[in-house]
Amino acid sequence: MSKKLIGACVFGQSGGPTSVINASAYGVIKTALDAPEITHVYGAAHGIVGVLNDELYDLGKEDAHELELLLNTPSSELGSCRYKIKEESELQRIHEIFEKYNIRYFFYNGGNDSMDTCSKVNDYLERVGYECRVIGVPKTIDNDLVGTDHCPGFGSAAKYIATTVAEVYKDAHVYDTGTITIVEIMGRHAGWLTGASALAGIHGLAPDYIYLPEIPFEMDDFLHNVKKTFKEKNNCLVAVSEGVRHSDGTFVAKAQVSETDGFGHAQLGGLAARLAHAAGQKTGAKVRGIELSLLQRCAAHLASQTDIDEAFLAGRSAVEHAIEGGTGKMVCFTREKEDGKYKCGVTFHPLSICANMEKNVPREWINEEGTNVTQEFIDYVLPLIQGENKRKIENGLPRFAQLKKIKAEL
Amino acid sequence: MSKKLIGACVFGQSGGPTSVINASAYGVIKTALDAPEITHVYGAAHGIVGVLNDELYDLGKEDAHELELLLNTPSSELGSCRYKIKEESELQRIHEIFEKYNIRYFFYNGGNDSMDTCSKVNDYLERVGYECRVIGVPKTIDNDLVGTDHCPGFGSAAKYIATTVAEVYKDAHVYDTGTITIVEIMGRHAGWLTGASALAGIHGLAPDYIYLPEIPFEMDDFLHNVKKTFKEKNNCLVAVSEGVRHSDGTFVAKAQVSETDGFGHAQLGGLAARLAHAAGQKTGAKVRGIELSLLQRCAAHLASQTDIDEAFLAGRSAVEHAIEGGTGKMVCFTREKEDGKYKCGVTFHPLSICANMEKNVPREWINEEGTNVTQEFIDYVLPLIQGENKRKIENGLPRFAQLKKIKAEL
Repeated sequence: MSKKLIGACVFGQSGGPTSVINASAYGVIKTALDAPEITHVYGAAHGIVGVLNDELYDLGKEDAHELELLLNTPSSELGSCRYKIKEESELQRIHEIFEKYNIRYFFYNGGNDSMDTCSKVNDYLERVGYECRVIGVPKTIDNDLVGTDHCPGFGSAAKYIATTVAEVYKDAHVYDTGTITIVEIMGRHAGWLTGASALAGIHGLAPDYIYLPEIPFEMDDFLHNVKKTFKEKNNCLVAVSEGVRHSDGTFVAKAQVSETDGFGHAQLGGLAARLAHAAGQKTGAKVRGIELSLLQRCAAHLASQTDIDEAFLAGRSAVEHAIEGGTGKMVCFTREKEDGKYKCGVTFHPLSICANMEKNVPREWINEEGTNVTQEFIDYVLPLIQGENKRKIENGLPRFAQLKKIKAEL
Repeated sequence: MSKKLIGACVFGQSGGPTSVINASAYGVIKTALDAPEITHVYGAAHGIVGVLNDELYDLGKEDAHELELLLNTPSSELGSCRYKIKEESELQRIHEIFEKYNIRYFFYNGGNDSMDTCSKVNDYLERVGYECRVIGVPKTIDNDLVGTDHCPGFGSAAKYIATTVAEVYKDAHVYDTGTITIVEIMGRHAGWLTGASALAGIHGLAPDYIYLPEIPFEMDDFLHNVKKTFKEKNNCLVAVSEGVRHSDGTFVAKAQVSETDGFGHAQLGGLAARLAHAAGQKTGAKVRGIELSLLQRCAAHLASQTDIDEAFLAGRSAVEHAIEGGTGKMVCFTREKEDGKYKCGVTFHPLSICANMEKNVPREWINEEGTNVTQEFIDYVLPLIQGENKRKIENGLPRFAQLKKIKAEL
């Protein structure tokens, strides 16, 4: 047990939002508010940018019920940023702000890049001898963080994707004329999210093909497969990652769009539309491209309760570990068994091994042809999507947290 | 009370699917199975096409529990069609099949075009003196059927749209840099669905602008508004109907796409992407276009329980009315008050007045500038999105009906 450290804490959110990032926020905030060692609980407006700008919220002034609603509020309630620390002067500025508010605990919630920020802050403060405990709280729908069995945010996105693909399957099979449907799913480099579409197969509604960014994308093979399946079944449903690349490493989405679109803007003709069009040309079938877009990362109404509970756990564990003396670590999940059932455990790994790296879907969890995931993949994801969330509904619509966001004053 | 008519019934689904069309199917099937006047309950494979092809399912052979799951199964479980009767010979063929199975009750579930089919079948059978009672069951997410206060399917789509827009609002406000987000919503001619996005405002998360197809779309005004709001709020959220048209009547979506896209295919660059791009050019802001696509009509996981109950009621009422002697009618909803609260009533209007016509959003329910809906619109939609559905979940995913679909035999 390290010596007791008394002081304020600051919590920040960084990177792309998820359905459950605020559940981690609540885990940090509630645990910190209850901890005698922590004198003030501040929230940084837009992550590290809020620290640099001296824009902190005094979270002790929030209503307890509104804070609890964070459990089911999507997106980053304190605001997020995509900010990479480049200069020593920025670290000096952070140190200065920490001194100003006597901040002795820093909790930062994000993905690989955010863990890099966290790591730099920790190293700097150690170097200059300012005592502060720094813990990273993982967050990403992409599930690509190294050091943890899985990431908070992934389970809910996976549940959204599997549910939506099951519903689209039903819709796409309605006409006697048949259709080819392409669903585009997030994940620039890792195929975890796209692979989660296979879970719709639990009830017989899986895509016919699943294309992950881990496997080079061959347009001819894709068209051949789609044509064959459409001929056999008068239908074909495909899930494809936005990040699929040609064998030369260029993105299929970008390359094709700049070729055919006057603007040269990737956003003006997504991958789904592009592949649907090509499939239509090849087969003469009616086609539809669907991009799940932001919905897969903000659909809190379909968040998995398991994911919400674990996101909260990640936040709580960060605070508890820091109070016990931990620093320079990221909260990591382990996969345990209890009475033969899945159980999530917590451990801590150095920020340096978690930052800036990416964990891909292992090759052996993808079928030989590179067009689907294996049962091992499904078994890995399935426990993470369990449990219907208990969100608050008012007037038929979700009631999200409404924080006052009162500026911190000394 | 008409004379008792004993015989079989056939039920068919037609047009675009909805989240709750199968709840109406269950209303028809269950009521018909329980009715002593109805000897057999058949389902037509792909609507009227199944009748023409003599492809009927014997629904009496289905498992009762699976049939009940239809209440929460999206899409048209018996298959749908988009088929317009053109020839007298088709009506003769339908008559022949009806004679073959002694079909004395015909229930057809669809939108305007389907009511036209229904009306033609009814007129023909009356003309040739074949006794058969024909009732149309309304269905459309577009809410544009004449003669009914609202349509089964609309409430669930509206709930999906309002919930999703609320979640996107949260996501779109996360970065300090600000964004312009354009959400494209279904409805080629009527703005009911797009207007439903305003309901997100119940909790303060409404779009800044809502563009309906009822009002000519002026690109300059749109860009001016978006620029102004982005400047004021560092953010702008817009809901736009896929059906908005220039003042000359041409679709904004199509016209623009054929202008900028080498393929000339509307599907290769949706309206949302097009408007987002234009807004980005005008303001320099980060932009995102989101198309809700099929999800708004198949997201049974977010179906309104009110809508499910009413869809069931529509199906049940069709059978009850026919048994009592009604024919040539469509089930219509009325809006009643009970203890000051919304209550849905049922009445029947001639198919001829419901077929082929469209009901638009009244001008007085749209604000003067044509950029939003009024409180009257919100008050009209709000009761229809109430109630969380009680869907069956297995393994964290919805468990839809799995019918055996056994071919009818004499």
